[in-house]
Amino acid sequence: MKTIFSQDQLLHAPRFEVSDGRLEPAKEIPTRAQMVLDRIHAVELGEVFEPNTFSLEPIKKVHDEGYLRFLEGFWEEWLAAGRKEEEAFPFVWPVRELRNDVVPEQIDGKLGYYSFDAGSPLGPNTWKAARKSADTALTGASLISGGERTAFALCRPPGHHAHNKFFGGYCFLNNAAIAAQSLLDSGAKKVSILDVDYHHGNGTQALFYDRADVQFLSIHADPKAEFPYFLGHADEKGIGAGEGFNHNYPLPLGTAWDTWSLALHQSLEQIKRYDPDVVIISLGMDPFEEDPISWFKLQSDDFLRLGQRLAALGKPTLFVMEGGYAVEDLGINCVNVLTAFEEG
Amino acid sequence: MKTIFSQDQLLHAPRFEVSDGRLEPAKEIPTRAQMVLDRIHAVELGEVFEPNTFSLEPIKKVHDEGYLRFLEGFWEEWLAAGRKEEEAFPFVWPVRELRNDVVPEQIDGKLGYYSFDAGSPLGPNTWKAARKSADTALTGASLISGGERTAFALCRPPGHHAHNKFFGGYCFLNNAAIAAQSLLDSGAKKVSILDVDYHHGNGTQALFYDRADVQFLSIHADPKAEFPYFLGHADEKGIGAGEGFNHNYPLPLGTAWDTWSLALHQSLEQIKRYDPDVVIISLGMDPFEEDPISWFKLQSDDFLRLGQRLAALGKPTLFVMEGGYAVEDLGINCVNVLTAFEEG
Repeated sequence: MKTIFSQDQLLHAPRFEVSDGRLEPAKEIPTRAQMVLDRIHAVELGEVFEPNTFSLEPIKKVHDEGYLRFLEGFWEEWLAAGRKEEEAFPFVWPVRELRNDVVPEQIDGKLGYYSFDAGSPLGPNTWKAARKSADTALTGASLISGGERTAFALCRPPGHHAHNKFFGGYCFLNNAAIAAQSLLDSGAKKVSILDVDYHHGNGTQALFYDRADVQFLSIHADPKAEFPYFLGHADEKGIGAGEGFNHNYPLPLGTAWDTWSLALHQSLEQIKRYDPDVVIISLGMDPFEEDPISWFKLQSDDFLRLGQRLAALGKPTLFVMEGGYAVEDLGINCVNVLTAFEEG
Repeated sequence: MKTIFSQDQLLHAPRFEVSDGRLEPAKEIPTRAQMVLDRIHAVELGEVFEPNTFSLEPIKKVHDEGYLRFLEGFWEEWLAAGRKEEEAFPFVWPVRELRNDVVPEQIDGKLGYYSFDAGSPLGPNTWKAARKSADTALTGASLISGGERTAFALCRPPGHHAHNKFFGGYCFLNNAAIAAQSLLDSGAKKVSILDVDYHHGNGTQALFYDRADVQFLSIHADPKAEFPYFLGHADEKGIGAGEGFNHNYPLPLGTAWDTWSLALHQSLEQIKRYDPDVVIISLGMDPFEEDPISWFKLQSDDFLRLGQRLAALGKPTLFVMEGGYAVEDLGINCVNVLTAFEEG
């Protein structure tokens, strides 16, 4: 399997995050990608190459232009405002009856306007890394469009929490969504995105919620109990033309393979029924039992089973890396999915 | 002038806040109230006495019951969740297409559900202090209902950023709004709330936005440039029955008395036209030129002029303390308004 990756994706290197009610060391750190890369080399999964460079056009199809301009110009604006901190946290958000129709001119106001959490600091290289991460996904999509059966877009920072015009959950550009749109624009009629990250893919869901050409399925911790808290319930089925094309499988904390695999089975049945041209896997590795911020109980061998079941769909499949945090087995688990898929 | 205050209001003592993109020392600290109290004693403004104890009923008329239960039970829940931190910060919020109709069961989800910023940590005594602050406002209202010309509710924590079901901007219960509702329930037909805090009184505006029995007026820094960023524009006039009863005067950073007093003049003209039974002044002292987090340029003598002009309205007037941060002249400025009002 070919892997796409750029060292530039490591340039986003947050130090802290506000999480669980305190300022603590960042979890979404460059080491994550490095661990996966090391394992890819160790098992000789296949060629690892740099992404192509794309214009902003395919990204603009998924994200608001004002949002992209904000991300691109943020660090310069931050410095121009006299800020000395090495990374920036938003601290106020336009919830409920607060207004979303006027973009603040001040930098902290903009930060809140274009985000939904305090866990995703912006630094000097966030845009560069996020842009390259999207290019990695786009390159993966172009491989599939070009006839490859599969490819692995080793995206970092991840993408599935990013919405049309706001970041959060360590995500800035929605790599899987950008890849899906690109596949459609290259001739695919239908794309399924199966999100197996421990956290609901709220951004991806929202981006395609009213559309029938992208089926979204997510197996994740119940949002009543876990981040992102405010999306990912089972009753979210899509609206308008998208009705019936959104499938959430929220599961209780502590879920192991026996229950998790039932949701996987249901997801795969839905995908078969939809019969897409391409499947995108939003590959979060945090259902793993030893993930430091997650509470599912999948074991390393379960990821082999996941890869086998995905292979059995018999569809061109693009893997897009999402979450999963730095533990010893992160690379092993991730590559387990990929090798089992290839052998499946 | 009588002042109402309880030492219990000092029990909320935050250590930090997330503000301007970093974790920094809290600004809304007990010293603020103490400085005002010291000045009240120094100039012998009048009696300072404890608030009466009220049931939750008058607070429930302004705030959502689920929100109040959350605030009341929060610290116990925090400890029950095994948290060891001395104060709690929310870190994720239900903006835009994220859902507001399902209350998360998990403590961090609830924190985000019931807030709009990261600058207002909840601690072990926040509820006790906020409740007592509301009692202070209610006691002030009862003095006015009982025939007093004026009273000073030395509320802390402040209230004007608190909405029906979310806290933020150092505010948990909207003291001025609770007092206004109580005055209406005690026989007043119309109440005007004039908010002179440097920051827009978003909570108070939102609480009465569709009502004609409370006129809301706010003179504040332009939200394009300042907290709360997402409310307080000049085009917010009220809706439905409330149309025409909301008046915002957003002013540029750097505004001094010459311009500020023009907005004050316009506000007072609107109040005269409305002809309320009672006026409530949301008394933020942060338009002061030396306030550490604000950028207006009012001087200590300007607060005497403010007091005189408010007196000239000739209406029963309840002063409710809002913001204004700990600088040497905080007490002097605050008491300048009150003494000038009494002499006016």
